[in-house]
Amino acid sequence: MRNPAENAQLALLLEVSGTPKPGNVDRHRDYDDLRFEHFMAGAVGSLSGLRMAADGDRIGRAFERGVAGMSDQSGGNTQFGALLMLTPLVRAAASDRLSPAGTSEVVEGTTVADACDFYRAFDHVEVAVDEPPEDMDALDVRRGSDAVPALRERELTLYDVMAQSADRDGVAAEWTSGFERSFEAAEWLRSDDGPVYKRASRVFLRLLADEPDTFVVTRNGETAAAEATDRAQAVLDGAEDAEALAEAFVERDINPGTTADLTAAALFIALEQGLEV
Amino acid sequence: MRNPAENAQLALLLEVSGTPKPGNVDRHRDYDDLRFEHFMAGAVGSLSGLRMAADGDRIGRAFERGVAGMSDQSGGNTQFGALLMLTPLVRAAASDRLSPAGTSEVVEGTTVADACDFYRAFDHVEVAVDEPPEDMDALDVRRGSDAVPALRERELTLYDVMAQSADRDGVAAEWTSGFERSFEAAEWLRSDDGPVYKRASRVFLRLLADEPDTFVVTRNGETAAAEATDRAQAVLDGAEDAEALAEAFVERDINPGTTADLTAAALFIALEQGLEV
Repeated sequence: MRNPAENAQLALLLEVSGTPKPGNVDRHRDYDDLRFEHFMAGAVGSLSGLRMAADGDRIGRAFERGVAGMSDQSGGNTQFGALLMLTPLVRAAASDRLSPAGTSEVVEGTTVADACDFYRAFDHVEVAVDEPPEDMDALDVRRGSDAVPALRERELTLYDVMAQSADRDGVAAEWTSGFERSFEAAEWLRSDDGPVYKRASRVFLRLLADEPDTFVVTRNGETAAAEATDRAQAVLDGAEDAEALAEAFVERDINPGTTADLTAAALFIALEQGLEV
Repeated sequence: MRNPAENAQLALLLEVSGTPKPGNVDRHRDYDDLRFEHFMAGAVGSLSGLRMAADGDRIGRAFERGVAGMSDQSGGNTQFGALLMLTPLVRAAASDRLSPAGTSEVVEGTTVADACDFYRAFDHVEVAVDEPPEDMDALDVRRGSDAVPALRERELTLYDVMAQSADRDGVAAEWTSGFERSFEAAEWLRSDDGPVYKRASRVFLRLLADEPDTFVVTRNGETAAAEATDRAQAVLDGAEDAEALAEAFVERDINPGTTADLTAAALFIALEQGLEV
């Protein structure tokens, strides 16, 4: 029987193995400098942080350690957003409350210290993020640990930090909604059949068709994000070929990374709920 | 910095990611009932046994635990042979003697208790093996833990057990030769360039071209094994297409599993020696 940290590691591996996932590194596609093998190494390195979450260590600290381990490969950011979701989910599972309500308890219990850890995690790896709102410059995540004094002064918990970007970041939105989409997508995975890597691909497409990917919005703009959503729906409707779309998006560097993060979270929940591999 | 157990887990993941590896599950190919995702779950489950090896636990016991964890998926035997090589290699690395001589010390230090553990590992998963020699029926590995009394009576260490099948099993041959081929293939990996999954494919082909795969001999016979070796050489010579050969071997269920095990061992050694991912 895998424990929650192991299921989270497996979720990271199954997520990147799912194919086709248009625009993402998957079993069949690499970017030149961000390859499948970097995700393998990222998943190996993430485990120690995920174990800390299971063992009851501080959420922020477990996340920061997970990111540090994940970053021990040359591809850069592979699973930052996925770890930001998996860390509280692992804690919830390890304390027998893997439900929207239980997970909300976990994230609402985070402290200012967790927020400081979260900012420190940005010291380990470069993450594509939005410009902060004007009055939030001191809290730009790109400051990394330099933002710690401002966090302490304003007494912001990690939950507070997430709430401030929930309207423009799909991972933060999960934190403040009881991981609503992740739990729903876990149901899709469980009621689907066939090999898990195909289910992961279908769930990815459904999530992408449902809502614009905020990582694409940040990196490629709203028009590209709307296009990604429309074309994911077209694949689901049989009007567009998934493999061709995957090639096209890799070509244009349209990488729905937040949707991949959601897929990893959904895979974790489904594994904990009994999805067999 | 990954520790030896983590590098061994990564080696398992990189091995199965290497493509094309004619006849094996790889990034692009599944068998119907033995799929890439089973190898992912196998690698996740293997870690606790690999950690025991690093921590100085008995080699046999660490191996048996690794196999138990590896088997916690529905595909059956994914990495039994690879773990049989990685377990002593991890111990050697964790005790600063990852060399042919140091690894020989580790395997020659195994005891009757390790041999009993090894047989118990066969209780967890079905492994394709040869018929034992006539006088060895009581030690048929397929007896699993039922063979323990005979092992104790004959006072056979795990090294002794390996030595008895070194002439017909490529993994056992590594145990009794200071992991000669594994260390040599690690050199090939390090002196090659480009993405690791392509290096893994090339090393696999070179190993297969060098010597018949004993797992193919066991399952498909000597003629098929000789054919696999010849055609691997043809791929290296540019006379045959690797992707086409991969399709053909999967079709005929010719699965050079021992060569994959050697590739995993070589990847581990190369990672410990500084191969960057």
